Amino acid sequence: MDAVEESLRRALSQKQSAVETQGNTVRSLKAAAVTTSVSKEKIDAAIEDLNKLKLEMASVEKQLQAHIGGAGRDGSISKEAFRQAVVNTLERRLFYIPSFKIYRGVAGLYDYGPPGCSVKSNVLSFWRQHFVLEENMLEVDCPCVTPEVVLKASGHVDKFTDLMVKDEKTGTCYRADHLLKDYCSEKLQKDLTMPPEKVTELKHVLATLDDLSSEELGAKIKEYGITAPDTKNSLSDPYPFNLMFQTSIGPSGLLPGYMRPETAQGIFVNFKDLYYFNGNKLPFAAAQIGQAFRNEISPRQGLLRVREFTLAEIEHFVDPEDKSHPKYSEVANLEFLMFPREEQMSGQSAKIIRLGDAVSKGIVNNETLGYFIGRVYLFLTRLGIDKDRLRFRQHLANEMAHYACDCWDAEIECSYGWIECVGIADRSAYDLLAHTEKSGVPLVASEKFAEPKEVEKLVIAPVKKDLGLAFKANQKKVIESLEAMSEKEALDMKAALDSKGEVEFYVCTLEKNVTITKNMVTINKERKKEHQRVFTPSVIEPSFGIGRIIYCLFEHSFYMRPSKAGDEQLNVFRFPPVVAPIKCTVFPLVQNQQYEAVAKSISKSLTAAGISHKIDVTGTSIGKRYARTDELGVPFAITVDSESSVTIRERDSKDQVRVSVEEAASVVKGVSEGHTTWADVWSTFPHHSSASQDD
Amino acid sequence: MDAVEESLRRALSQKQSAVETQGNTVRSLKAAAVTTSVSKEKIDAAIEDLNKLKLEMASVEKQLQAHIGGAGRDGSISKEAFRQAVVNTLERRLFYIPSFKIYRGVAGLYDYGPPGCSVKSNVLSFWRQHFVLEENMLEVDCPCVTPEVVLKASGHVDKFTDLMVKDEKTGTCYRADHLLKDYCSEKLQKDLTMPPEKVTELKHVLATLDDLSSEELGAKIKEYGITAPDTKNSLSDPYPFNLMFQTSIGPSGLLPGYMRPETAQGIFVNFKDLYYFNGNKLPFAAAQIGQAFRNEISPRQGLLRVREFTLAEIEHFVDPEDKSHPKYSEVANLEFLMFPREEQMSGQSAKIIRLGDAVSKGIVNNETLGYFIGRVYLFLTRLGIDKDRLRFRQHLANEMAHYACDCWDAEIECSYGWIECVGIADRSAYDLLAHTEKSGVPLVASEKFAEPKEVEKLVIAPVKKDLGLAFKANQKKVIESLEAMSEKEALDMKAALDSKGEVEFYVCTLEKNVTITKNMVTINKERKKEHQRVFTPSVIEPSFGIGRIIYCLFEHSFYMRPSKAGDEQLNVFRFPPVVAPIKCTVFPLVQNQQYEAVAKSISKSLTAAGISHKIDVTGTSIGKRYARTDELGVPFAITVDSESSVTIRERDSKDQVRVSVEEAASVVKGVSEGHTTWADVWSTFPHHSSASQDD
Repeated sequence: MDAVEESLRRALSQKQSAVETQGNTVRSLKAAAVTTSVSKEKIDAAIEDLNKLKLEMASVEKQLQAHIGGAGRDGSISKEAFRQAVVNTLERRLFYIPSFKIYRGVAGLYDYGPPGCSVKSNVLSFWRQHFVLEENMLEVDCPCVTPEVVLKASGHVDKFTDLMVKDEKTGTCYRADHLLKDYCSEKLQKDLTMPPEKVTELKHVLATLDDLSSEELGAKIKEYGITAPDTKNSLSDPYPFNLMFQTSIGPSGLLPGYMRPETAQGIFVNFKDLYYFNGNKLPFAAAQIGQAFRNEISPRQGLLRVREFTLAEIEHFVDPEDKSHPKYSEVANLEFLMFPREEQMSGQSAKIIRLGDAVSKGIVNNETLGYFIGRVYLFLTRLGIDKDRLRFRQHLANEMAHYACDCWDAEIECSYGWIECVGIADRSAYDLLAHTEKSGVPLVASEKFAEPKEVEKLVIAPVKKDLGLAFKANQKKVIESLEAMSEKEALDMKAALDSKGEVEFYVCTLEKNVTITKNMVTINKERKKEHQRVFTPSVIEPSFGIGRIIYCLFEHSFYMRPSKAGDEQLNVFRFPPVVAPIKCTVFPLVQNQQYEAVAKSISKSLTAAGISHKIDVTGTSIGKRYARTDELGVPFAITVDSESSVTIRERDSKDQVRVSVEEAASVVKGVSEGHTTWADVWSTFPHHSSASQDD
Repeated sequence: MDAVEESLRRALSQKQSAVETQGNTVRSLKAAAVTTSVSKEKIDAAIEDLNKLKLEMASVEKQLQAHIGGAGRDGSISKEAFRQAVVNTLERRLFYIPSFKIYRGVAGLYDYGPPGCSVKSNVLSFWRQHFVLEENMLEVDCPCVTPEVVLKASGHVDKFTDLMVKDEKTGTCYRADHLLKDYCSEKLQKDLTMPPEKVTELKHVLATLDDLSSEELGAKIKEYGITAPDTKNSLSDPYPFNLMFQTSIGPSGLLPGYMRPETAQGIFVNFKDLYYFNGNKLPFAAAQIGQAFRNEISPRQGLLRVREFTLAEIEHFVDPEDKSHPKYSEVANLEFLMFPREEQMSGQSAKIIRLGDAVSKGIVNNETLGYFIGRVYLFLTRLGIDKDRLRFRQHLANEMAHYACDCWDAEIECSYGWIECVGIADRSAYDLLAHTEKSGVPLVASEKFAEPKEVEKLVIAPVKKDLGLAFKANQKKVIESLEAMSEKEALDMKAALDSKGEVEFYVCTLEKNVTITKNMVTINKERKKEHQRVFTPSVIEPSFGIGRIIYCLFEHSFYMRPSKAGDEQLNVFRFPPVVAPIKCTVFPLVQNQQYEAVAKSISKSLTAAGISHKIDVTGTSIGKRYARTDELGVPFAITVDSESSVTIRERDSKDQVRVSVEEAASVVKGVSEGHTTWADVWSTFPHHSSASQDD
C-alpha cells in the first residue's frame, strides 16, 4: 500500500469515528431535550457539526476511491470508461468481432475484422523487417498439430496447467487464483474501512498469488468464504487442468496430439538442421510466427486473455561461455523504464536506467539478453507504444522457471493494469537437453580448436574378468555403478584402494554394499588431446504476444477531441503510418465527374506504389468523411478540390498542404513508408487552410 | 485409353502370340530332328526368326511402358527421377523439413525451413497485393478452433468424410479409394498383356473413382482380391471417417469443437457485419489467409496431401440476379488452357480458349466467375507457374456439390500428374442460407428500389375465432398448417372453398385430415407496394491451396545445368524475384578487408531499401558460391572486385554488368521489385565478362 493510500485510509477511519462520536452526541442531546432544558440552538449547532464532519468524510472517501479505483487524478475519465470508449470504437468499426457471434460466440475467441486484420498484418511485417531481416534470422513455419511426445519432452503435458475449482452444484469451472484475486481486489476497493492489517494481508495475497500451492489456494478460498460468483454455491478444492487443446492424429485414435501452446518447440526440434544450415556456426537465431492455443478455464479481459493467439518467437542460440553480442553497442545507450528484482522486493517503483549500465552492473545477466531488451524497446515504441507506459520488469526468483538464468518481461500499462506483452528469457540449455534426452538425437554444437588442447580426464576402467569371478550374475550392476561414480567418489575410492587395497561400495541397484578390491578397477586421470569442444547451446528467447501488443497499441493510440461545432466528441487512433490499417483516403471534395476522375487516377498511382488506400466518393460532408477515417487511424487524406492540385491532410495536426495531382501519390508514399516525415512535407509544400473543409 | 496406347497394346499382344507360335515351331522342329531328318539350317533359321520376334516384342513393350509410365518421350529423365532430384534439393537446402523429424516425424506434417518459409511469405504477400489490395477486399482473421454448431450448419460434421478400410488383423487404416486406385494403376502399368476389355474396365474404374458409393467400393475391393498393402491381410468393408481434428473447448468437456477444415466459414458467419462495413452494398469480397486442418487417413504425395496447410480464400458476395463484374473487360482477352465439361466427356483434351469467348458462349457461367478465373491465371503465371502446365478444368456434374452452379479448378501439372491447386466455385446461396437457418440470424442483403414497386402477394388469413370453436386444443396446429401452405395448395383450397364451401385438409402435425369451411380462412392475392428487395447473396469462392501452389512452383522452377568443367550437374531454381527467398547475395571476390568493407556498406544500403540478402565472406571459389545461391533460387549476386565498382550477375543467363558501388543497391532494388527488368539493366550498364569468375 503506498503512502498516499495509507494516509487516506487513516484519515477516513478518523473521520468515521468522529462522525460516529458526533452522532452519539446529537442523539443524547435530543434524548436529554425531552426531559431537561437543552436549548434548540445547542442541538442545531451539534447537527451542523455532524453534517460538516459527514461532508469531510465523504470528501476523503472520494479521494481514496479515486486513488485506488483508477479514475484519473486530474479529473479525466476513469479507466473503465476509457476502456469502454476504446472497445466501443474497435467493435463498431470492426477492428475485431467476437468469433461466431451469430451463434452467441465462444469465450476467448475473437476475429480481426478488416481494419484489425490490416493492423495485425502490418505489425507482423514490421516485426519481420525489424527482427528477421535486420538480424538475418532463420525463419521457420511449423504445424500447430503436435504429437504428444514433443510436448511430453518439453514438460507441457505434465506441467502446463492452471488450478481450477468447480461450482459443487452446477459444475461450472473457475480459475481458482482469479476468484481469490477478485475477492481481494473488490474487498480492497469497496471496503474502505477495513483495518490496515487486513489491507496489508489482502495486498500480500495479491502479490504472492502466483506462488500459492493448490492446498494454500484452497485454504484461502475456504478462509475467506469465497463462493461461485454466479450461484453463490460452495466450491470444490482446486485441482490442475491442462491448458492444451487435445486431439488425435490419424484415424487409428492411437496417436494423441495437441494444438501447440507455443511455437518455440518447433524450432528446438529442428536445431540440428538449422545449425547445419547456418554453416555449423554459433550464435544464430531462428524465428517463427504462428498460432498458439491455450484452453483457458474462463477467459476474460477481452483481447488480452484468449484461447487462440498469434505468437512471434525468437530462439537465439549462443555459446553459454560467450554471451556477448556484436551489435550490443548499438543499443547500450538507450534509456527506459526498468524494474529490476531488487526494486520490486524493496517496494520501490520502476525507474529509468541506461541499458548499458544495467548490463555492466549485472542487473541484466548478459549482453545478448540486454541487446534483445533494447531491440524490443525499439520495436514497441516504433509501433506507437507510449514509452512512459512501457517498462521492463525482471522476474522474481520465484517466478522464473528453475532452469532460467534471467528473465525480463516487457510490460505495457493499459486500462487492465501492467500487461506482460513480451517475455525475454535466458532459458539456458533446458529445451535442447530435454529433446536430446527424449529423442536420443544429440542437439549440440561444437567449437573446433585452432590447435588441439590437452585436457585431463578421469577414466574409470572396471576389470571385467575379476568382477565376473567375484559377483557372477550381479557383475553388470556392479560395473554400471562403478562407471556412474562422480569424480569425487572415484578419487575417494582410488585413495582407499591405494591405501587399504579394498573398499566397501554401495550398489544402489542391488540395495547393498559389496567389497571392491584393487584388482577389480583402475581409476586414473589421463591426459588427452581434444580437437573440439562439444556443448549444448544456451537459448535466449524473446517471445511476443502479438494480440496483446495490438490491444495495448489500440489503447495508447486512442484519443477523443471535440468536433468543430463542439457538439460531439470524435474518436481518433493516432497510429503511426507503419501500422495504420490503410495509409490514405482519397476524397473528391464534391460529387462531380472531373474530381472523381482525378481521384481515380491518384488511386491508380497509389495502387502501383503499393500504398493501401480507399476512395470515398459519397456526398457526405468532408468533415464527416475526415472523422470517419480518423476513427480508423488513417494518417493521410487527399482531397480533390481542383483538377490540377489537391490537398493532403495529416490526421493529428489536421494541417493541410497543397501538392500537384502528379506528386500526390509519391508524397504520401514517402511519408507512409518513413522516407520523409510530415514535418518535411509541411516545410516543402504550400500550406492550405480551408475553414470550410475541415470540421 | 488414348489411340497410341491402344495401338501399342494391340501390337504387343500380336507380337506376343507371334512369339508363342514361333516358339512352338522351334520346339516341334527340334523334337522332329531327333527322329526325322530336319536340317540344322532350318532349325537355326527358325530360332533366328524367334529371336527377331522377341526383340520386336521387347521394343513394343518398351514403347508402351514409356508411354504409360511417364518417362519423358524425348528421352529426358522420368517423372520419378525428376521429382527425386527436386525433393533432394528441397530437403538438403531446408526448403522444407518433415516435422518433428528427431521423433521420426508424423505423416502429413511438414515444416517450412528458412528458404521455404521465405518463399511462402513472399507468395502470401503477393497474394495480398494481387487480390486484397488491388480489389479492395475485406480481409479478416478468424480462429482455427471452431465450435461444433458452425460446422454442423456447414455440413462438415455430417459429410466431411473419406471412406476407410482396416487391415482385419493389425487394424492399420487405409483410404479405400486409394487402394483401388493403386491396384488399377499398377495393373495397367505392369500387366502389359491384359486383354483390352480389362484395360478399358480398369480405366473406367479410375475415371469414376470419386463416384463410387461405399458399397460399390467394397464390392470392387472384394472382386479384385485387394488386400492390405503391408501385410496382405484381408480388409474390412469401407466405412466413413470424419476428416476433422476434434477437440473440446473449455474445461467442462461439454463444448465439442474442431480445427477448421477451411477458412470460409469464418467469413460466412460474419456476413452481416461485413455487409454493414461495406456500407450495405453489393458486390464485395472478403478474404482470409490461415491454417486449415484435415486429418487425412494415410497422407502421401509429400507436400501435396498434408494434414495441416495454409489456405487463402476469397468469398465474393454478389446479387444472384446480376453477376456482371466491373473489371471483367480487363481479363476478357486472356487466352489459356481450358478444359470444359464437354471436352472431358467426349474424351478430348484441354485447349486454348479466349476467356471472353468462354463466358459469352456460356461455357463459364457468368462474368464474375470468369473474372476470377482470369485473375487466378495472372496470379499463378506471375508467380512463375508455367502456363503450358496450367489448365482450368470445369467440374463434371457428378463432381460438383449439389448447390454449386459452376466450378472450375486451376490444375497444375507436376510429377504427380494434374493437381488441383485453386478451386473457383459459384456456391450460389448455399452457405449463407445454411447459417441463416441454423443461427436464426438472417444473412441477407437488400436492394432499395428507386421507386416503390407494386407486387402481387398471396395472403393466407386464418380466422382464429371460428377455428378455435371448431378445433379447440388443436387450433394452433391447424393454423400453422394453413399458413405453411404453398401458393399452389392455397389457391387450390380457395377454389374448393369457393365452389364447395368446405374442403378436407391434411394437418401433418396431427397426422389426420380435418374439414376446413369457408368461414375459417380467407385466401386472397393482394397487391402491395414494396420499397426494397431482400435476398440471399450468391457467393463466388476462389480458394487457394498455398502449399500445393508452392510445391508445383518448386517443380516448375527447377532445372539442372552442367558445371563449367562439365563434371557435375548443378541445380537451379528459376524463381522470379517476387518469390525468391532472398533477392541478392553479396560476395567479396577474395577475402580482404577493403572488399569486405564495401560488401558491408552495400549490405547496409540493401537493408535500408528492404531488400533481403545475404553476405558470403567465405573464401570459397566464386563459382561454388554462385552455385550455392543458384540452388536457393537467388536471382542476383553482387560481387565486389574493386572499391569503386562491382558486378551484378543474373542467375539464369549468368550475364554480368558493372555498376558503381553507390548504385548497386538501387539497381538490385529496382529489378527485384519489378520496377525495371534485367533487360533494362543489361542495356543500361557496361557488360562484364570474366571467364575466371563464373563456372
